[in-house]
Amino acid sequence: MKTYFECIPCLVRQAVDSVRDAGLDDEEQADVLRTVLREMGEMDLLASPPAMSQRIHELVRAQSGIPDLYASQKKASNELALRLFPELREEVAGANDPLELALRLVIAGNIIDLGVKSGLCDGDVHESIEHAIAAPFDGDVKAFADAVNAADTILYLADNAGEIVFDRLLIERLPRERVTLAVKGGPIINDATRADAEVAGLCDMVSVIDNGFDAPGTILEKCSPEFRERFWNADLIIAKGQGNFETLSDVDAPVVFLLKAKCPVIARHLDCEIGSLVMRMHGASVPVAR
Amino acid sequence: MKTYFECIPCLVRQAVDSVRDAGLDDEEQADVLRTVLREMGEMDLLASPPAMSQRIHELVRAQSGIPDLYASQKKASNELALRLFPELREEVAGANDPLELALRLVIAGNIIDLGVKSGLCDGDVHESIEHAIAAPFDGDVKAFADAVNAADTILYLADNAGEIVFDRLLIERLPRERVTLAVKGGPIINDATRADAEVAGLCDMVSVIDNGFDAPGTILEKCSPEFRERFWNADLIIAKGQGNFETLSDVDAPVVFLLKAKCPVIARHLDCEIGSLVMRMHGASVPVAR
Repeated sequence: MKTYFECIPCLVRQAVDSVRDAGLDDEEQADVLRTVLREMGEMDLLASPPAMSQRIHELVRAQSGIPDLYASQKKASNELALRLFPELREEVAGANDPLELALRLVIAGNIIDLGVKSGLCDGDVHESIEHAIAAPFDGDVKAFADAVNAADTILYLADNAGEIVFDRLLIERLPRERVTLAVKGGPIINDATRADAEVAGLCDMVSVIDNGFDAPGTILEKCSPEFRERFWNADLIIAKGQGNFETLSDVDAPVVFLLKAKCPVIARHLDCEIGSLVMRMHGASVPVAR
Repeated sequence: MKTYFECIPCLVRQAVDSVRDAGLDDEEQADVLRTVLREMGEMDLLASPPAMSQRIHELVRAQSGIPDLYASQKKASNELALRLFPELREEVAGANDPLELALRLVIAGNIIDLGVKSGLCDGDVHESIEHAIAAPFDGDVKAFADAVNAADTILYLADNAGEIVFDRLLIERLPRERVTLAVKGGPIINDATRADAEVAGLCDMVSVIDNGFDAPGTILEKCSPEFRERFWNADLIIAKGQGNFETLSDVDAPVVFLLKAKCPVIARHLDCEIGSLVMRMHGASVPVAR
């Protein structure tokens, strides 16, 4: 999608957030932030937010000496989601339309995004689940089911830790032998990496790869050749979250985006209210089918 | 007050806002923003937000070639406030406690602050007025009246355009011959300058000076010697808005702050809810009196 200058303050906020609880004193935090600001002054400000975010967090990690600034938040999000998981799975199994409820709930899990919002409490997640069950759903479940049935190979692009546990609700309803789950190639904000896929129990269920890069989205030209091959050969790509939308919405591939529209820029771009559940099918074949 | 790193993204947002409607194309806007970011990378990030904001907007004006980026918004705010003024003045005159209602309404007018919020619609102002009439009021009106009565010289520090028309509701209830109104020394965000005091009809009512500097607050060491002399000789200083609070809350002088707590940082610092009406008496003599 087009980049908006409004994203720039939000990227600076991400940097502020990332060092707030890193155990640095005020002067050390100021040093990191000055480095980030100076570097942003040299950036292409029309690049995608995930591209700028990747570079910003690379700088923060290098200067703070902390390789994974969100480790404890990711752990807490996974634990919360794992506590909620058994009951949610039962609700999905007993629903009138289990696939629709699974889609709603995996989108609800997209609230666990520390790139968009500073901090997150358990209450936010509970609220997101309740909202997802009751809210209007901007998507065509039948077309999604058809696209899944028609696809021999499905690539599922995970978004965040915690959220990835929710993703299992949908992945369990897909033809697992045809599914590959892709996580990020390294720690970036609270995005899921292989460790989170393991904690979510997904590594025993589907093939799991990483995309070879540490942006909070999917910047194809920076991803590994192996990932790119999977991407271009997939019959269906299920892409979770804002970061994947921001980086893939203009890519000509059979992608279904599942996200919560969490910020004003995305909501305006998608022409929906903030907080909406969004499923968008996109690419050469819409509805997606071979 | 202490500066919080959370203010840094907000300062970047101010810069983004300031060039959005300035008639620059994307690349020109990006150039301005890159200059701002680079310069922020050299700043003392523990300086007050108004000090950083002053420098940022100085850069934006220099690079964009536009001397007053908020001219049209200031004009619109004044016009809106002037339309509302006659009815509000009648309401104050007919109130059980006219001074309290005047205080509430001049604080309501502090919603017209483009430093804190991107954009502002007439509805925001109407809502702020309704809220100000009904909301709890965190201030001691009797102590304020006593301080006014005891003061031979009163310095009233205006905040924003539009808001300055609301200020007239209070200024009309003060002993005018003892009041000096101070505006900013040059255009900065939508802060009021002498032109706005004139539009508000205040120049015929009280003595009007400017503070000799163009920060969105009162940075005493940068203000003119004439202003500083008035400041230090005033028996009572009435300081409107967040910017004046941010720059004067640690100054040992008889200041009454009147503001709406519009951002999470200020609300947390003042230990109140966002949107609260706040009157704080501060300085060597609290309650303020000679």
